[in-house]
Amino acid sequence: MLTFYYATGTCALASHLALEYAGAPYKAVRVDFSQQEQRSPDYLRLNPKGRVPVLLTDQGVLTETPALLQFISQSFPDAKLMPLDDVFLLARANEFNSYLCSTVHVAHAHRVRGARWADDAQAIEAMKQKAPQNMGDCFELIERDMLRGPWVLGEHFSTCDMYLFTLAQWLKGDGVDINRFPRVADHFQRMAADPVVVRVLAQQAAAQAATA
Amino acid sequence: MLTFYYATGTCALASHLALEYAGAPYKAVRVDFSQQEQRSPDYLRLNPKGRVPVLLTDQGVLTETPALLQFISQSFPDAKLMPLDDVFLLARANEFNSYLCSTVHVAHAHRVRGARWADDAQAIEAMKQKAPQNMGDCFELIERDMLRGPWVLGEHFSTCDMYLFTLAQWLKGDGVDINRFPRVADHFQRMAADPVVVRVLAQQAAAQAATA
Repeated sequence: MLTFYYATGTCALASHLALEYAGAPYKAVRVDFSQQEQRSPDYLRLNPKGRVPVLLTDQGVLTETPALLQFISQSFPDAKLMPLDDVFLLARANEFNSYLCSTVHVAHAHRVRGARWADDAQAIEAMKQKAPQNMGDCFELIERDMLRGPWVLGEHFSTCDMYLFTLAQWLKGDGVDINRFPRVADHFQRMAADPVVVRVLAQQAAAQAATA
Repeated sequence: MLTFYYATGTCALASHLALEYAGAPYKAVRVDFSQQEQRSPDYLRLNPKGRVPVLLTDQGVLTETPALLQFISQSFPDAKLMPLDDVFLLARANEFNSYLCSTVHVAHAHRVRGARWADDAQAIEAMKQKAPQNMGDCFELIERDMLRGPWVLGEHFSTCDMYLFTLAQWLKGDGVDINRFPRVADHFQRMAADPVVVRVLAQQAAAQAATA
């Protein structure tokens, strides 16, 4: 049995979607960032980084979205969430997920979590100012070079699509018009209409409402 | 045949080491950052991100260190560079590599490449000031929770060790004394003395000298 820890509006959505698309048996636990639950002693024992997502397995705790996405894909191979039988295509999938994790997520974080990288208020403001440009540059690259269509990897629907949808949700708050990237915008609409995505977002919203 | 593009002093060392430990047939090509070769039209056609590492394979181009490390490990399985037969342990390895890529490398980059995230000179200086603290925090976590010993994953020597060594090389320049982390320091010494590491560093130095 798996226990999945997430917070609403975070990158944990990608792994949450993967668990649902995989048909995995799991329990979802909401970590309330507004109550700083990620800093509680119990949570820090689970994940000393104080972040989400966390997947608690029978063998131990796992963190980091790209690692979780492949772990879920390999644990439920029938769902074919990644091209596990093709070493090169699997690398392509991991390349994409790694780019989202280390560059796109980081570009976004400079708008909302600049205090991670500077103490000075003006510096934090300067990061916030530049974040839309960096997010725009990232999505231009995704639009032009990475999103093969109809899905990220081409015909193979994968965890890359779940992760791209998750970060594309942030564009609006980052002040970037998704319609600058027609193929990303089309991908976003198709994902948003998918019953699995609708269900997971509704579950997360219900969990949030229950503690409000 | 593989062609590997790297720059001296960068995270590409991790993949370079993996190719050598794997016994892979490959040609190494140095990209001279001092001449802005990563911004040349030819290089940008290869990798529109303008970064290293790049691995050119018969099937196409691959980038992003965590993806390359698993690709090399899977392409040369006899070298046993990752626990490929254990889904959970492989996820542990990818979790570690993903953390180095998205958090530790990013913490370091704020000392040397702050202009990525702010245009203002004072903001860039403020990031530079905080980088030693963030790198120190990252390595405290690695020392305490991640480096199982003697290698990152325990008894299994893996790409995680190559990647950790690569980023630990940056601590000195970042103003962080590696001896604050005795287990990391011991790991670093063992890696630095390994003939494969000595050979790759010598090759990179020779390539640099040849163009100086």
